[in-house]
Amino acid sequence: MTTPLRIAVLGASGYTGADLVRLALTHPGIEIAALGANSKAGQTMAAIWPHFTPYKLPTLTTAEAIDYAAIDVVFGCLPHAASATLLATIPDTTIIDLSADFRLKSADSYAEWYNTPHPAPHLLETAVYGLSEFAADTLPGAHLIACPGCYPTAVLLALTPLLDAGEIAPERITVNALSGVSGAGRSLKEANLFPEVAEAVHPYGLGHHRHMPEIEQQLALAAGEPVTISFTPHLVPMNRGELVTCIVELAPGRSLASARAALADRYADTPFVHLLPDGLAPATRMVRGSNHCVVNIFADRIPGRVIVVAAIDNLVKGSSGQAIQNMNLALGLPETIGLEAAPLFP
Amino acid sequence: MTTPLRIAVLGASGYTGADLVRLALTHPGIEIAALGANSKAGQTMAAIWPHFTPYKLPTLTTAEAIDYAAIDVVFGCLPHAASATLLATIPDTTIIDLSADFRLKSADSYAEWYNTPHPAPHLLETAVYGLSEFAADTLPGAHLIACPGCYPTAVLLALTPLLDAGEIAPERITVNALSGVSGAGRSLKEANLFPEVAEAVHPYGLGHHRHMPEIEQQLALAAGEPVTISFTPHLVPMNRGELVTCIVELAPGRSLASARAALADRYADTPFVHLLPDGLAPATRMVRGSNHCVVNIFADRIPGRVIVVAAIDNLVKGSSGQAIQNMNLALGLPETIGLEAAPLFP
Amino acid sequence: MTTPLRIAVLGASGYTGADLVRLALTHPGIEIAALGANSKAGQTMAAIWPHFTPYKLPTLTTAEAIDYAAIDVVFGCLPHAASATLLATIPDTTIIDLSADFRLKSADSYAEWYNTPHPAPHLLETAVYGLSEFAADTLPGAHLIACPGCYPTAVLLALTPLLDAGEIAPERITVNALSGVSGAGRSLKEANLFPEVAEAVHPYGLGHHRHMPEIEQQLALAAGEPVTISFTPHLVPMNRGELVTCIVELAPGRSLASARAALADRYADTPFVHLLPDGLAPATRMVRGSNHCVVNIFADRIPGRVIVVAAIDNLVKGSSGQAIQNMNLALGLPETIGLEAAPLFP
Amino acid sequence: MTTPLRIAVLGASGYTGADLVRLALTHPGIEIAALGANSKAGQTMAAIWPHFTPYKLPTLTTAEAIDYAAIDVVFGCLPHAASATLLATIPDTTIIDLSADFRLKSADSYAEWYNTPHPAPHLLETAVYGLSEFAADTLPGAHLIACPGCYPTAVLLALTPLLDAGEIAPERITVNALSGVSGAGRSLKEANLFPEVAEAVHPYGLGHHRHMPEIEQQLALAAGEPVTISFTPHLVPMNRGELVTCIVELAPGRSLASARAALADRYADTPFVHLLPDGLAPATRMVRGSNHCVVNIFADRIPGRVIVVAAIDNLVKGSSGQAIQNMNLALGLPETIGLEAAPLFP
Repeated sequence: MTTPLRIAVLGASGYTGADLVRLALTHPGIEIAALGANSKAGQTMAAIWPHFTPYKLPTLTTAEAIDYAAIDVVFGCLPHAASATLLATIPDTTIIDLSADFRLKSADSYAEWYNTPHPAPHLLETAVYGLSEFAADTLPGAHLIACPGCYPTAVLLALTPLLDAGEIAPERITVNALSGVSGAGRSLKEANLFPEVAEAVHPYGLGHHRHMPEIEQQLALAAGEPVTISFTPHLVPMNRGELVTCIVELAPGRSLASARAALADRYADTPFVHLLPDGLAPATRMVRGSNHCVVNIFADRIPGRVIVVAAIDNLVKGSSGQAIQNMNLALGLPETIGLEAAPLFP
Repeated sequence: MTTPLRIAVLGASGYTGADLVRLALTHPGIEIAALGANSKAGQTMAAIWPHFTPYKLPTLTTAEAIDYAAIDVVFGCLPHAASATLLATIPDTTIIDLSADFRLKSADSYAEWYNTPHPAPHLLETAVYGLSEFAADTLPGAHLIACPGCYPTAVLLALTPLLDAGEIAPERITVNALSGVSGAGRSLKEANLFPEVAEAVHPYGLGHHRHMPEIEQQLALAAGEPVTISFTPHLVPMNRGELVTCIVELAPGRSLASARAALADRYADTPFVHLLPDGLAPATRMVRGSNHCVVNIFADRIPGRVIVVAAIDNLVKGSSGQAIQNMNLALGLPETIGLEAAPLFP
Repeated sequence: MTTPLRIAVLGASGYTGADLVRLALTHPGIEIAALGANSKAGQTMAAIWPHFTPYKLPTLTTAEAIDYAAIDVVFGCLPHAASATLLATIPDTTIIDLSADFRLKSADSYAEWYNTPHPAPHLLETAVYGLSEFAADTLPGAHLIACPGCYPTAVLLALTPLLDAGEIAPERITVNALSGVSGAGRSLKEANLFPEVAEAVHPYGLGHHRHMPEIEQQLALAAGEPVTISFTPHLVPMNRGELVTCIVELAPGRSLASARAALADRYADTPFVHLLPDGLAPATRMVRGSNHCVVNIFADRIPGRVIVVAAIDNLVKGSSGQAIQNMNLALGLPETIGLEAAPLFP
Repeated sequence: MTTPLRIAVLGASGYTGADLVRLALTHPGIEIAALGANSKAGQTMAAIWPHFTPYKLPTLTTAEAIDYAAIDVVFGCLPHAASATLLATIPDTTIIDLSADFRLKSADSYAEWYNTPHPAPHLLETAVYGLSEFAADTLPGAHLIACPGCYPTAVLLALTPLLDAGEIAPERITVNALSGVSGAGRSLKEANLFPEVAEAVHPYGLGHHRHMPEIEQQLALAAGEPVTISFTPHLVPMNRGELVTCIVELAPGRSLASARAALADRYADTPFVHLLPDGLAPATRMVRGSNHCVVNIFADRIPGRVIVVAAIDNLVKGSSGQAIQNMNLALGLPETIGLEAAPLFP
């Protein structure tokens, strides 16, 4: 690591971009070379994010003003559609996109769920879906990496090993999810004001949330057949954290024990995904601020069903942390480098 | 209402007892005659609950020291087992129990779930299950009323009309629930310390929560057949509020529209339960501090299923408010008296 | 109270307006006749405030469309400047203004602190400053009542009796204040987003907050000489509540005991302001959702100084509750009517 | 750093001990050799602290069972009195104590404020007071380091440079302080339950808090004369963070500008203490989870006074982070090693 990778972060004025900068600051293999934020161009990062006051960082600039020839890795933390439009113009760098633009393989599905034609459909086929623990074959050398959404990350880490091993049925997968408010971004919406959120909880996107097709696409790959899921996210009064509670049916002949064994086997050596001891419920406080995911499985009261629970920090393993993990894997660095910080509790 | 009802509140040192006192203070038909709290006997309520400083209230006493001959209504806010043991000794008053002791009709089931023989099984048969909106026939004149648990209140208000009307199947009812921390009471447990709860969320009682048999018992009455449910509660960093998200299957030939109509019909005139406009998600902030319940129903992405959501304040409609509503109905007072306060938002 | 007072609430789409409606709903002497909110005219209150779903309320209208001849009392919950501009045009009703527009007696001071000429300086002299407990002489029959700001309410309730009785010196009064986020209103500012506020605290308006001249004006009246104060407010992650910690110097010959006696004497019979028992620190949780104020006084470690602490709910005693208290006093109703609800804790 | 320092953490079952372990885990010069927690001896750290599940850590043991001959540095995270009693028995290691036991130089003062005779008064003279930025001369080679309390750390970083430079008067220093709940530790007290703390704020220790004599002792050293301060801490509903607002009087002939210059000069090169740009208020969210402190100075409205504000994370710069910074300085490691993580926001 004698020559650090020079990275550019586009969308550095959002929570995701800021958390990527936070992690990059202590990554020994990274030099933060450029920070893009068109609406804030010319300002310092500390002006937008006072918690970066102690750090020397590039002044914010427009994405267009960046000399990409001097950049090794571009992290896209832009809104969907804007992301693909811009990233499609950048030649010859490793691109790690944290937006939704390259997650769905079908441009039609994208158009349906995002209400706009895909800006760069020719890139969809080669984009690598970067659920790190399940992309060991495709990440090395990848040029365009689509980082999973936060909810898909948690759901897929919980269920993919079980579908892969034939432990659970692909029908009637029911997911209830809880998310902290940072997932809504730093945009000015009445619904995100403190008094609207504090001391309260509610579901949203009932029966129609944009992470559904992404989850279904990836579960279908594991199941070998189309999957339709039930998915109900809820907004919870906390900054960070995401927890998914998945109620699923065991496949014929399988049991809680065999399902648990499949998870234990799959995550025996993964540095960031951990099956908890029997009986211990995953909690978001166990992973706050870190790239870890904790998973566990329980018997449901209805016979033949199990409950699989996973918790992540939505801004880290659900976004910026996994993006860096993907960079590490794509460029041959140690998987955990820059991501070793333990969770912040309390 | 020329002569107010003289009430005694047993267990006035807990959150439930305190909230009952709060509501009773503005109920024009109530005189708070005695407050029982054995461990705090001799102290003033203001010493235990400084927010009652402005109010004149009886000094705390032991339950044994109360002259029940001078009491019209006893509210039991005691822990389970202790409640039935004590209440069984009180003659000739209306007893409204907020503990779990008279909710289950089966002493065997009680013993199984509460790990202790029932202290007064002879009272189980005559105890009235006080889900107010569904007990209009049984509450008037009742001598012993078992107030439902907080989770059962929310789940039953959401699902009973749909089972009654044959709109949904009694199989595979899946409930995910979220609760504020006051539901855990004022007891000293590490898990309830602020730093353990704030900025965090987790499920608990996975596959085995004590409210399960109560919910199943009452759903079975509506369904006309045994019901086994999946129920996963989660602890959320807020003081008050409870929200249940129920994923259920439509009965053959039924639709979202017909199910919605059943709810609209059932709750057309109820003063405290309200079907929200189409598409509006129930939120706990809509009912905070009040006796209201808001309900709504949505299409699930999996065909043939619907999502029914209900929100209550766990200490009011889920506990003390419903107890007073039951008193009103049992003794012939107007149902809403003492419970008119609008929700506190923000 | 055979004929309820018909009230109009202007600015019903803000937190203050909504809380006034909440309180008015259970006030037996009030009929809510009109709700003004120009930007939301034509919508229902429940559309803007879902927690009012159970209540029948007038549809929102423009302030100009209200027939003031049919209104007995107008509550102005509008932004400053807009408030005076509109209220000056309304004839022949009792006007209770919750904005800053009629608090300062000097139009020059107003112009300096609010950066705009006063819209109706001719009304300043006759406007009654409605700190309820200190306006018993001026409120009855008043036509224009200026409700104090939330911080001034707390500070003045803490210090006015001490200045009136000559217990403390008017020099070097130092106030540190803490406020919940609802004080910032429902406006879309990045600083009020949940993730910016939660798990954090910071001071604001350092050395220059708009409530300073109001506090100084009223303290000067009590002291009989000009007063300059130090005032530092802080934003705290909670919805409601305001607490002021005032460090003041005893006047020559006075003591903690005599100062305490002055407070005890002044608040011996006030229904909403309460001196706590010796040693008990005021806390916002003691008054949440109610019109109460709790006060206490303590020895400072620096000899000759005392610490006076007061806590209120910024939206109730600090705003809408005091407005209704003022209406009661102005129109000869019992002072406490409509305001009896006990604090909501937890 | 070829041979890491072997450290023992005594009191690893408390928040302070756990945060020290969190930081030590990523410190490249540290090997965590032993973890003491007498009441939990035999258990794993993950059993007590599930967020450490992914990490390999020594099993908890009693302090007596540790072989101190194999330990280079002992971190004491024990309650006061217990700490000195134990630490006095450990020979020949570097001891860094996070308790209150070695902060006060006077055993009499200790006995007065802590209600117990000092367990090891012979060590008081040689103990180094470890306010890192002001102990460059005394830390290198120190054998016993007393880490400052959290409040003292914030107050002293704010005021010491001003007293050192003669910018402010030592009389009438008035400090209002705000703290998150983790400062109260993981002990079972009703006052620390979530429902008691959330949505609320209150002062405590009015006129008599144990951090007062420590602050006064250190300010007196800077002032060259005895100092008596006013100090009022408040409990705020957040996990981490501490903010002090100090109202002080300028010395004759000094100004806001000269005072600001003194701070700028003192903190021009410190890696963890930062004077913010003119006008920007320190906020705890700027330092959460990090070892940073942000400071700023403002004009008070009362002429001749200034307001100095400082914010820290009470568990890091206010406790475990500063302890590691002190270890680095004492043993000749780079000051910032192991403490480079940027603040966690949101």
